[in-house]
Amino acid sequence: MKSRAAVMKAYNQPLSIEYIEVPEPRGEAVVVKIAGAGVCHSDLHLLRGELPGLPTPLPIVLGHENSGVVYARGEKVPEELREGTPVLVFGGWYEVEYEYTLTGDQQLSKTPVWPGIIKYNGGYSEYLYVPSYKFLVPAHNIEDLAAASVLTDAGLTPYRAVKKLKPHVSPDDYVVVVGLGGLGLFGAQYAKLILNARVILVDVREEALQLASRVVRLDPEDLLLNASKVSVLDEISKVTRGRGVRGVLDFVGSSKTLETYLKVLGGKGVYVVVGLHSPLGPQIPIHDLVTKEVSILGSLWGNIKELYEVVDLAKRGLVKYRELVVKVRLEEINNAFEKLERGEVAGRQVVIP
Amino acid sequence: MKSRAAVMKAYNQPLSIEYIEVPEPRGEAVVVKIAGAGVCHSDLHLLRGELPGLPTPLPIVLGHENSGVVYARGEKVPEELREGTPVLVFGGWYEVEYEYTLTGDQQLSKTPVWPGIIKYNGGYSEYLYVPSYKFLVPAHNIEDLAAASVLTDAGLTPYRAVKKLKPHVSPDDYVVVVGLGGLGLFGAQYAKLILNARVILVDVREEALQLASRVVRLDPEDLLLNASKVSVLDEISKVTRGRGVRGVLDFVGSSKTLETYLKVLGGKGVYVVVGLHSPLGPQIPIHDLVTKEVSILGSLWGNIKELYEVVDLAKRGLVKYRELVVKVRLEEINNAFEKLERGEVAGRQVVIP
Amino acid sequence: MKSRAAVMKAYNQPLSIEYIEVPEPRGEAVVVKIAGAGVCHSDLHLLRGELPGLPTPLPIVLGHENSGVVYARGEKVPEELREGTPVLVFGGWYEVEYEYTLTGDQQLSKTPVWPGIIKYNGGYSEYLYVPSYKFLVPAHNIEDLAAASVLTDAGLTPYRAVKKLKPHVSPDDYVVVVGLGGLGLFGAQYAKLILNARVILVDVREEALQLASRVVRLDPEDLLLNASKVSVLDEISKVTRGRGVRGVLDFVGSSKTLETYLKVLGGKGVYVVVGLHSPLGPQIPIHDLVTKEVSILGSLWGNIKELYEVVDLAKRGLVKYRELVVKVRLEEINNAFEKLERGEVAGRQVVIP
Amino acid sequence: MKSRAAVMKAYNQPLSIEYIEVPEPRGEAVVVKIAGAGVCHSDLHLLRGELPGLPTPLPIVLGHENSGVVYARGEKVPEELREGTPVLVFGGWYEVEYEYTLTGDQQLSKTPVWPGIIKYNGGYSEYLYVPSYKFLVPAHNIEDLAAASVLTDAGLTPYRAVKKLKPHVSPDDYVVVVGLGGLGLFGAQYAKLILNARVILVDVREEALQLASRVVRLDPEDLLLNASKVSVLDEISKVTRGRGVRGVLDFVGSSKTLETYLKVLGGKGVYVVVGLHSPLGPQIPIHDLVTKEVSILGSLWGNIKELYEVVDLAKRGLVKYRELVVKVRLEEINNAFEKLERGEVAGRQVVIP
Repeated sequence: MKSRAAVMKAYNQPLSIEYIEVPEPRGEAVVVKIAGAGVCHSDLHLLRGELPGLPTPLPIVLGHENSGVVYARGEKVPEELREGTPVLVFGGWYEVEYEYTLTGDQQLSKTPVWPGIIKYNGGYSEYLYVPSYKFLVPAHNIEDLAAASVLTDAGLTPYRAVKKLKPHVSPDDYVVVVGLGGLGLFGAQYAKLILNARVILVDVREEALQLASRVVRLDPEDLLLNASKVSVLDEISKVTRGRGVRGVLDFVGSSKTLETYLKVLGGKGVYVVVGLHSPLGPQIPIHDLVTKEVSILGSLWGNIKELYEVVDLAKRGLVKYRELVVKVRLEEINNAFEKLERGEVAGRQVVIP
Repeated sequence: MKSRAAVMKAYNQPLSIEYIEVPEPRGEAVVVKIAGAGVCHSDLHLLRGELPGLPTPLPIVLGHENSGVVYARGEKVPEELREGTPVLVFGGWYEVEYEYTLTGDQQLSKTPVWPGIIKYNGGYSEYLYVPSYKFLVPAHNIEDLAAASVLTDAGLTPYRAVKKLKPHVSPDDYVVVVGLGGLGLFGAQYAKLILNARVILVDVREEALQLASRVVRLDPEDLLLNASKVSVLDEISKVTRGRGVRGVLDFVGSSKTLETYLKVLGGKGVYVVVGLHSPLGPQIPIHDLVTKEVSILGSLWGNIKELYEVVDLAKRGLVKYRELVVKVRLEEINNAFEKLERGEVAGRQVVIP
Repeated sequence: MKSRAAVMKAYNQPLSIEYIEVPEPRGEAVVVKIAGAGVCHSDLHLLRGELPGLPTPLPIVLGHENSGVVYARGEKVPEELREGTPVLVFGGWYEVEYEYTLTGDQQLSKTPVWPGIIKYNGGYSEYLYVPSYKFLVPAHNIEDLAAASVLTDAGLTPYRAVKKLKPHVSPDDYVVVVGLGGLGLFGAQYAKLILNARVILVDVREEALQLASRVVRLDPEDLLLNASKVSVLDEISKVTRGRGVRGVLDFVGSSKTLETYLKVLGGKGVYVVVGLHSPLGPQIPIHDLVTKEVSILGSLWGNIKELYEVVDLAKRGLVKYRELVVKVRLEEINNAFEKLERGEVAGRQVVIP
Repeated sequence: MKSRAAVMKAYNQPLSIEYIEVPEPRGEAVVVKIAGAGVCHSDLHLLRGELPGLPTPLPIVLGHENSGVVYARGEKVPEELREGTPVLVFGGWYEVEYEYTLTGDQQLSKTPVWPGIIKYNGGYSEYLYVPSYKFLVPAHNIEDLAAASVLTDAGLTPYRAVKKLKPHVSPDDYVVVVGLGGLGLFGAQYAKLILNARVILVDVREEALQLASRVVRLDPEDLLLNASKVSVLDEISKVTRGRGVRGVLDFVGSSKTLETYLKVLGGKGVYVVVGLHSPLGPQIPIHDLVTKEVSILGSLWGNIKELYEVVDLAKRGLVKYRELVVKVRLEEINNAFEKLERGEVAGRQVVIP
């Protein structure tokens, strides 16, 4: 069957809106009619050719953050996923089951075939071919299916990161959230909801801070800091009375953010890096690491079970996603990337095909 | 009462053997007659004035790795610790109980008064004043009480480090142990005993590797590598068939060791830093940290409960300590420090007062 | 010094209001001027002679759930706890530090000397002698210090129980809270706050359910069930669509509650028993335990660190305690016990001396 | 293709040796040429019609503990599992991937299709049809492939049970292993290898105890107890000096074993039930459960990742399996079941087709 899609044919060229062929779903496969497809920073990196390590084939349809309804399915797909079922599409597809996939961390598979990134076409398209129903999470009763596409990456990745902090953080601790873009706005919500911690939210853009103040359920002792206007180190030292914070969630991942926020960790502090802005950070503070028993953890995307949990939180209204979404039409996709590149997007753009 | 002791009166001067005054034990306090006191690298750093951050008073008797028998005790000390009881002295003394001490990690207290390092005299002395019986671990039936002094630091610190790896490492994983000095030789034993992992033991000194081959129960697939003679990266890549290792225990903690061994971590790998050779390490590999979900953890000494466990393992012969010990008389202590400084010690020296 | 107190001189006799002697605080000891002392079911059991296993001396002043301000202190008590400091009194006092106390679970000590229960007088008194400052948790800025006394048992015990569920329960799971007395009303709050789970709250008293509906932040999918009016098994099966619940918090602990609610556990379900109504429960369901990998866990009181966390949650308004408290004067204490015995108390009574 | 197999046609009748049809493997499917198939107690229960809850179809070939080599494979099976590859067959097959299978506990799937038990034929046969390669664990360099079949259940189930004890048991604790049949002999090995604990091994059969003394690497302080000859409660109390044990691994799971060995648990003790001898056990000791914070956990089989780990331990000689195996020919299978029923088997019988 044919599907109208935004096709990337070459690096640094506008995507071309045209018809592509979508395979017939057989066996475990499903075709999903896309409701929405989130626009991620990594798509921009792909388009700019800044991720040369990835075996992205050209031409390809980008888009790994997808939602929609089951349109057609193979003979092995269970009845729960019959035609018409609203679904979110987990993006960490893989080919061979082994080790990480068997233990539940599908996104860490050694044979990844991520849609819109590696091998398969993604969701900037009317229809998406999904090689197995196991990558679909039912999304009955979700209020805005198109907007909910962002739960599969922007909403999922910080959830995993916050779960890594969970065993280390008590309600009487402080947690810093660095970077209030698409991911950070979810991360800040989870830090309140799941850790019950006091939070310090940091960004350099005033609009991002304002959006955070509307979306995150803040308590009187929580802080919103504009790092371009105040000394974050001073502010954090003041509020923690010199004791430092227990956790940092870094959604930027630049050499500068790590240099700054590693300094605010107190004893047994844990720094979770999610963002990938710089390949290399500052020098490892060996002395502090040992004498304060500090940890630095990387966190990558999330697994399918975690996506089930995120969807449930969103359905119950415990995590807000619609407030973060700006919808754009498929025809506007090149414009959407330009705005993203210029830093003009507060929240997350979602393409509606 | 009087006690013959090795007193440090100034930095970079030989210790002076003379008589000091030991306070009468009242309340919870105990005086221990020292059987042995291990010679630690940090003592050398203290002597050289290389730990200026620490509030070490002068003059002071060094020695934080101590064993002996209860010689006298205050009226609140329980009967189990009556005079004559063999004990190991936990060194992470503290003054005020709060937060970390209440949760079991006494060595992380914010009011540390470590013997031989901060405030109190240490164990290069006939008698040691211990402010509370709670710092004493009974050591009945331990074969060599003097040698067992090394269990309180060289034997304890790696135990905690290995426990940090425990949730992450399966028996079918590889673990690298970097640096086979006093601590590393224990670390290698624990990696086999507690993790049941395959191990790769690395040092640059042939004698250290030879001592390791005698002390550690190695399996056929385990490796001993002399990093001054072979390319460790190549060897590790070969034996792990390119998959990398799951854990690194770094007992050196130099910029060079971190740079080298961070590279051998595979997916979900965990790097535990114990050594403190360099204050700063190489640049943080942000990209690898995130995409491979790697962790870097600091580990500091151990707590009292962990010392109980270490003593038990030693009593049952499951961890070897006597083979690592070279005994020296109190009068030879300056010579002992010189040998340590010249890198001529394989294993651990213990002062017998 | 003298203190007016409610003294228990014999079992099943009214408490006698009279003056007792309170020791001078020396060393680590502190005298606290009581603000409030919660009335616990175990006090009633003690009074009725139903806990003969406990070495309770007579006469004794009951009351192990206490708050107040530092009135006088020994010379070793740190300045943070100077006279006038508002404090909650952790009740799990112990004499010798060993094993559990060293690892943080002070309430599991093998040398317990709990106030109002074992050896020491408790808080139904103007002044309370506390043998060490480490049993005091600062409570600056707490809104109602007298009412906050209930945090030390009714508010602490369920916190520990919920933390035992934490690694097992996801936000998309159901948790049943059985028994909405003093403890259960806190347990229900924690189940929402810390587990973010869907909850099913059960009691047989309409007033308890009504109080719960006012205190607990319920979501639309949560259930309040009156077990004397509906079939809880049917209702739970309906709402979980036959899948069962992941967790049960049983604050009753009777043979009947265990028999009923073990049946509602689904796969990998965890049953936490807090209440002690019956010494023996129903027969262990071996077949279900194994084939569904179900767990049954006991939970006892809480430790000092957990009390710090509970106090913080209460200060920040995240857990409600004042709404649960009914204040009574010391002179009314015998009447308070009678009301408790007749089941006429919704929430928790607090004695104001 | 045809395969000679032992077919169960009716309950309580001898199995009939005859030829069955084995399907051609397509897609992910594989046909394995059986090397060995372990004889499990649950096979006997199936044969006696004692597991009526299971939807076992008749006729069926029993045998869920299988090893062999890849004989033929579908087009989606990866090259690592080419024809001739030695494999162990994980038995917890399932149809739909959801929840537990996605998180790694495949044996807890809600759509189980276990070979020889539910839907598919098992391994008392020359050839076994396996619906997906993901149920195969490569077993290169395993010394005795036929005997190694027992690793998939007798060797796997106790491994999972011991891992449940791991966070709770320290090397200075005691662990009791109840029942030294096929599973218990593995359980005892893991208790030494993985927990490094002191063990107390109990059985009522002298031959089982003798086999244990040969297979398990016992330390001087470990105990072997014949429960039909000595008072186990007295012996355990003596050796633990009244403190009780930290863990019990019950491979019998009878009302009598639970009644006896729940009594030997000390504070924070954990009782893991693996055996399924009685559907119901003794009454739940609510009072002890709470005041000692005791846990009772069920444990079911193991997952695929755990099987990988078990196979690795066996290859490296760290866990012994060949010593436990008695090989019988396919034609002797009815005799093998009779011996098992009469309790005449020490270790585990393996059918060689």
